[in-house]
Amino acid sequence: MPRGRFITLEGGEGAGKSTQARLLKNTLSKLLSGSLAADGIRVLQTREPGGAPGAEAIRGVLLGSGPWDGISECMLHFAARREHVVRTIRPALEAGIWVVCDRFVDSTMAYQVFGQGVPREVFDSLAKMTLEGLTPDLTLMLDIGPEEGLTRATARGETNRYEALDPDFHARVRAGFRAIAAAEPARCAVVDATAAPEGVAAEILRIVRARLAP
Amino acid sequence: MPRGRFITLEGGEGAGKSTQARLLKNTLSKLLSGSLAADGIRVLQTREPGGAPGAEAIRGVLLGSGPWDGISECMLHFAARREHVVRTIRPALEAGIWVVCDRFVDSTMAYQVFGQGVPREVFDSLAKMTLEGLTPDLTLMLDIGPEEGLTRATARGETNRYEALDPDFHARVRAGFRAIAAAEPARCAVVDATAAPEGVAAEILRIVRARLAP
Ligand SMILES: Nc1ncnc2c1ncn2[C@@H]1O[C@H](COP(=O)(O)OP(=O)(O)O)[C@@H](O)[C@H]1O
Ligand SMILES: Nc1ncnc2c1ncn2[C@@H]1O[C@H](COP(=O)(O)OP(=O)(O)O)[C@@H](O)[C@H]1O
Ligand SMILES: [Mg+2]
Ligand SMILES: [Mg+2]
Repeated sequence: MPRGRFITLEGGEGAGKSTQARLLKNTLSKLLSGSLAADGIRVLQTREPGGAPGAEAIRGVLLGSGPWDGISECMLHFAARREHVVRTIRPALEAGIWVVCDRFVDSTMAYQVFGQGVPREVFDSLAKMTLEGLTPDLTLMLDIGPEEGLTRATARGETNRYEALDPDFHARVRAGFRAIAAAEPARCAVVDATAAPEGVAAEILRIVRARLAP
Repeated sequence: MPRGRFITLEGGEGAGKSTQARLLKNTLSKLLSGSLAADGIRVLQTREPGGAPGAEAIRGVLLGSGPWDGISECMLHFAARREHVVRTIRPALEAGIWVVCDRFVDSTMAYQVFGQGVPREVFDSLAKMTLEGLTPDLTLMLDIGPEEGLTRATARGETNRYEALDPDFHARVRAGFRAIAAAEPARCAVVDATAAPEGVAAEILRIVRARLAP
């Protein structure tokens, strides 16, 4: 059984990550449905923070309490991520299942390190002890101006703590995602997220085909 | 205003940490009650995991969910500790208040590193990013045979996840506390916790007077 592929979707508020994760999961399920179609899960859609029982409990604390010290918040995100990796993502990949994940490690880098000023060494040691070498095979960075993204997110109805933060914060987050993509071009692809959902989905599928040949 | 002193109580289940924290807090309050007595808090009694709003929320998740991966559990303890240090312990010490804390960093070393086998480097990096140099002025290691401690804890009524673990686990935890005390004799004092509560309290007071001259 070949290992599954690990695809992450990253980007600011309202960029369309959750929308595109769902579309990509559906498209990939059709593309990959061969002899194992009866199993029903050749593609797993998941999200962070969350994706495992302990991680969902931590998500509740992260969103329900606070404000957090930046380093505490980083540790909470990585504790949730560790449960997600150990109990959900790694077992799925080992079982040959493709994993489509809505936010992953780059969100912590963009929000906590670029956005909130947590030292990069803190991020690096937490990432090392959490991931033990696991890296996404492909990261799609959905890029959109913070104002346009926030307008979409507000129209969607739910709001979160980050959406209320100042424009400078969101500009730093966007710059963070772009800097990660520039530093790791083999893993990352920046996708223009301003097009209509179907257009963005088509571009994402083109990249997935080109890089991972599903 | 001189900085307050930071005293931690450590030891296995039922060693008497909570009992002695309360007694020491009361005794110290009397000893220290001078010109500031009207303020009512020259001594703060606190405990881990907990001691700050976010840390108490994490405590709920730690005890309410799981079983945790050892590294995730370590990260959760340190995230709670970071909130405790930043919001409660450090401000108190800076205000001249003495802090008596029921469990601190040595419990994570004894339970997660010695007991559960979490790598020591994981502990070291988490401790560094959490504490930023803060160390207890005095750590009292309440030493008792795990069987006797567990009998006391069971008689007390509440049980927790650790109390149910095998005897080898508790033997490793006890050995862990002793190893820490042997490695850091200037900070730590091992206290025979098998005596009656008043006897243990008298020995603790003798050590506090000798080392911190309150
Ligand atoms: N390409 C798009 N163009 C316009 N609106 C979009 C697009 N993609 C998503 N939306 C809408 O914008 C809102 C935010 O999308 P969502 O997928 O939840 O973003 P994210 O998960 O990145 O915060 C939703 O109401 C969604 O229907
Ligand atoms: N020195 C002692 N001798 C006998 N029983 C004790 C002593 N100290 C505490 N106890 C009792 O043992 C139980 C556990 O004590 P506690 O202070 O809660 O321990 P810990 O906080 O270390 O788990 C309690 O019921 C307490 O009243
Ligand atoms: Mg979303
Ligand atoms: Mg206790």
